[in-house]
Amino acid sequence: MQTVAIFGVGLIGGSFALALRKGGFGGRIIGVSSDQTIRAALDLGVIDEALPAREAASQADLLYLSQPIHKIAECLEELDAWVKPGALITDAGSTKTLIVDRASQKITRAQFLGGHPMAGRERRGVEAAEADLFQGRPYVLTPLTPGDLESPAAREFQEWIPRIGSFPIIMSAEEHDQTVAFTSHLPQLASTALAALLESRFNNQTRVYGPALVDSTRLALSSFEIWGDILDTNRDAVRLALASYIAKLEEFRGALDTPTLRRGFDAGARFAARLRDVT
Amino acid sequence: MQTVAIFGVGLIGGSFALALRKGGFGGRIIGVSSDQTIRAALDLGVIDEALPAREAASQADLLYLSQPIHKIAECLEELDAWVKPGALITDAGSTKTLIVDRASQKITRAQFLGGHPMAGRERRGVEAAEADLFQGRPYVLTPLTPGDLESPAAREFQEWIPRIGSFPIIMSAEEHDQTVAFTSHLPQLASTALAALLESRFNNQTRVYGPALVDSTRLALSSFEIWGDILDTNRDAVRLALASYIAKLEEFRGALDTPTLRRGFDAGARFAARLRDVT
Repeated sequence: MQTVAIFGVGLIGGSFALALRKGGFGGRIIGVSSDQTIRAALDLGVIDEALPAREAASQADLLYLSQPIHKIAECLEELDAWVKPGALITDAGSTKTLIVDRASQKITRAQFLGGHPMAGRERRGVEAAEADLFQGRPYVLTPLTPGDLESPAAREFQEWIPRIGSFPIIMSAEEHDQTVAFTSHLPQLASTALAALLESRFNNQTRVYGPALVDSTRLALSSFEIWGDILDTNRDAVRLALASYIAKLEEFRGALDTPTLRRGFDAGARFAARLRDVT
Repeated sequence: MQTVAIFGVGLIGGSFALALRKGGFGGRIIGVSSDQTIRAALDLGVIDEALPAREAASQADLLYLSQPIHKIAECLEELDAWVKPGALITDAGSTKTLIVDRASQKITRAQFLGGHPMAGRERRGVEAAEADLFQGRPYVLTPLTPGDLESPAAREFQEWIPRIGSFPIIMSAEEHDQTVAFTSHLPQLASTALAALLESRFNNQTRVYGPALVDSTRLALSSFEIWGDILDTNRDAVRLALASYIAKLEEFRGALDTPTLRRGFDAGARFAARLRDVT
């Protein structure tokens, strides 16, 4: 792999470029992004050069799609005509079913392998990119068949995952989307709903709160520009996660004076503590 | 104020002692706690000496009750017989209605002024105490009448609030409890419910999560030994807060593909951003 093209040089794409470089990648890194982002990415040394999508696609051994989800899906409509045979197209979209499905219809001249690095920050943009963003975080790969992991290009890409500090987890696109509905999309909606409720109730006029509220509303800073696509492409799973969460809250509401609440606190503390052992 | 007695030398009581000292308090600080806590508090230099409750109460100009809520309420049953006339009894309980009510019935020979420093950590105990815990945080005072703030002892206590890095907010016990149901108790239950739900769904077998889930479950580490009393003494307000939160989540569940969700994200981000301007 000599040439990597990053489509969408934002937080994730920019961090992937920086992490590749830090991991020892000596080839070219081409950026495909808006003019403004390209200028910032060149200034910050995140990419080596910028090209239009068509030229970048025709030269790259690895095409890394790290735009918002619907943008990735659009991009997949065009790439097949441009790519080099033997190239690998992968993506970093936060939901996988739509993208993997679209790629299986549209990509015929190169190989597609869906991915999702489970890393992020509430800040966006190439300015927030950092080489260590993936450090210690899982990198989900969603092959359509086990053979998708065995091609030379796929093997080479997988070799880079530990070199950027990450570790691979292989699962289907559907299983991924059902899981992140609970572990990622639900925490986001829980924080946003809390902050939106308090906005309507207090209009920021209260100063009566502790550090817990500041922490609990951190995710609510996240942008709808990103989350609109995520939630739109995982509706059924997100609705199920919300329904399960609402049921748990209803259980608490009915049990403020009973042992149910203690069991809930114990279970929650157990989960939170184990999460920290693993992290 | 020459002598302060801290009843319950845990995170809050211990931090108050350390903060007083750092703020320039030159008098005696007596601790009243379990044998084990007293040993740790003396070792850590948090208190100067330990006494049984009765002796401590009879010598103190300020009695600082920082036990769990029901423990404070029990303590108020006994203190009146022991205190010096002119002494001020205050507390750091996380709900105020029960405690203020109990004090108004039981304390006749000294003055009671309810308080709640809006500071905390998910770690408990005197080992977690720190002199800067109250830095920049509000200190709620809940006088029964405005005159409660004007006595010599109450004025002197209020002078210490900025010296420990805090700022006072005056409100009624009822208004405090209704507010913290939304700004403190609801964030706690939201985190605990999320963690408890994921515990039952994944049993910690999934590694497919990002840093957001770790953050979102931090409050779930909090102990039910503290929260049982808080929720038990603020049931109606907490039920209302939970119902409002559930309604907001239901709104999201029904609107994953509509502008409602964008409005929710915008309102949530606005609240979260303003919270950080103030903090």
